[in-house]
Amino acid sequence: MSEVNRIWRLRKRPAGDITDDVLSFEEESIPEPNDGEFLFRLNYLSLDPTNVIWMRDIDQYMPPVELNDPMRGVVCGTVVKSHHPDFSEGDIVSGIGVWADYQIGTPQRVSPIGETGPTPVVNVFSTFAVVGPTAYFGLLDIGKPRKGETVVVSAAAGAVGSIVGQIAKIKGCRVVGLAGTNEKCAWIKDDLNFDAVINYRTEDFPRTLASACPDGIDVYFDNVGGKILDACLTLMNFKGRIPTCGLISQYNATKPVPGPYNYGMIIMQRLHVEGFIVMDYAERYPEAIAALSQWMAEGKIKVRTEIVDGLENALQTLKKLFTGANMGKLIIRVEDI
Amino acid sequence: MSEVNRIWRLRKRPAGDITDDVLSFEEESIPEPNDGEFLFRLNYLSLDPTNVIWMRDIDQYMPPVELNDPMRGVVCGTVVKSHHPDFSEGDIVSGIGVWADYQIGTPQRVSPIGETGPTPVVNVFSTFAVVGPTAYFGLLDIGKPRKGETVVVSAAAGAVGSIVGQIAKIKGCRVVGLAGTNEKCAWIKDDLNFDAVINYRTEDFPRTLASACPDGIDVYFDNVGGKILDACLTLMNFKGRIPTCGLISQYNATKPVPGPYNYGMIIMQRLHVEGFIVMDYAERYPEAIAALSQWMAEGKIKVRTEIVDGLENALQTLKKLFTGANMGKLIIRVEDI
Repeated sequence: MSEVNRIWRLRKRPAGDITDDVLSFEEESIPEPNDGEFLFRLNYLSLDPTNVIWMRDIDQYMPPVELNDPMRGVVCGTVVKSHHPDFSEGDIVSGIGVWADYQIGTPQRVSPIGETGPTPVVNVFSTFAVVGPTAYFGLLDIGKPRKGETVVVSAAAGAVGSIVGQIAKIKGCRVVGLAGTNEKCAWIKDDLNFDAVINYRTEDFPRTLASACPDGIDVYFDNVGGKILDACLTLMNFKGRIPTCGLISQYNATKPVPGPYNYGMIIMQRLHVEGFIVMDYAERYPEAIAALSQWMAEGKIKVRTEIVDGLENALQTLKKLFTGANMGKLIIRVEDI
Repeated sequence: MSEVNRIWRLRKRPAGDITDDVLSFEEESIPEPNDGEFLFRLNYLSLDPTNVIWMRDIDQYMPPVELNDPMRGVVCGTVVKSHHPDFSEGDIVSGIGVWADYQIGTPQRVSPIGETGPTPVVNVFSTFAVVGPTAYFGLLDIGKPRKGETVVVSAAAGAVGSIVGQIAKIKGCRVVGLAGTNEKCAWIKDDLNFDAVINYRTEDFPRTLASACPDGIDVYFDNVGGKILDACLTLMNFKGRIPTCGLISQYNATKPVPGPYNYGMIIMQRLHVEGFIVMDYAERYPEAIAALSQWMAEGKIKVRTEIVDGLENALQTLKKLFTGANMGKLIIRVEDI
């Protein structure tokens, strides 16, 4: 075991796009667990759009990271020392932690993956830990898609969006995926069998969307907000549903961002718009994981993972989420399990 | 019976605020009912914000009025000639009609008020025909207020808003009303017993709203959109509800209006935003009317009506809805019943 703990700390709140000075990468001593705590070593770090929300001092669903505190993240690691009766050396745990090689865990923040966990373990981030339940509950609980309905999903080649579309296919819907490169579009069309895909960066985007949705849109699973949300709003059907999962188009904005110009469609078509955070469904994770496991075993859900080695690359890699450079779940690998 | 039928026709779609040339007031001959139809004489014409939606060629919940067609309105009148077995001379009917002294009715568009109807009949518009059920279903079905929660309503001295606040009081909520003049504020505070009222035109509006909602907002009944919606969004509690009834702040806009800048709060607080139109609840009107009748009889709901005489004054009077000049339900009286 190393004597040194590498750790990312928040030094500055981002103003606009993330810059290199918002976090610092330090070498510190390894912390000692107190009674009821344990120490674990980081294996995988999940990179998610919500990371930049946590960096900012804005209204959000949990307190932002304090300046100079370790950067918060969704982590997976191995217990190396325990002062908690339920955790032993070698246990694999996952949950909310920090961007550091070594860190203190408690049962309130991380849970054991257990023997029935995903194989390989890195799949915990590509399906089970966050993105799978996010897609599952957002689409099924809020979107309530019915057979034959049209479901549109943005960031469709992303970790959540790609699973949303596949679940909608399982439910018998016509699925239209929106992504920002031809390579992404090819993946979700050819490998994931979406019914239609659109590169929203093409100039005639709103028109192509309308062509791809001849019967309108019943469910728009919103990962991005902005112009794509506006284009979808104009096509929503009576009593359509918009599960609001993310608004990545505006997370790095430097000034106030207007809401959708077509907000009035909420009345005209009696739309149901509802935001959610996957943690709200924590008690029902077993339901989602059971369903997702079965669908994966049946080959009905495929996931794609983009793994970058080295905790030192976390900040540069996070930027990819905001330039559209990644495809599938973005993960930092510190040490394979 | 007169030989002449006075009728308002749509001549131009409004660009911005309603101008005098959007409608023309004509004298025409009185139409003849065909088999299965009847002719009725107008007694009362309801003036509603939705009238200007119908004038515009925009996405909406029913087809806009065609250019040169009679202006559509919610009407109450008396049958003068019938070729329908279920309607007789002297029957009082209410529903969707046109801005004209005489017009053709069918059971698809208007219904008899019946012997148990409101007294005086003009109350049909101040409570039962549209505004009461709008308040009832929007607040209770979508807002789902629970005892002790904070309910904020905009346009609170308006026909719908004043009833929303009173129903919320009946349900044991803390009710905060937003209105645009001190006279309106005094009415809803002193006569309707709202817990707090705010003149949103005061300069420090967002701050006074926060002071009036020390426990945040659980239900915001939105009649207006715009800056008031944005101010309420910042105060919404976890799992708050926003029944979206109207967006009157933007109906006369001449260019695209941005949605709320705080749209992201929908995710952060897991809000449920849902639009509705009272007609969607037509099958359940008896439930609303029974409840409203009882509450009125018990003195728990009071309504205020602003009656303007003369069909010729309809267009000028409609403008009042957009300048905030009226209080309570705005009605044109052609002839009392």
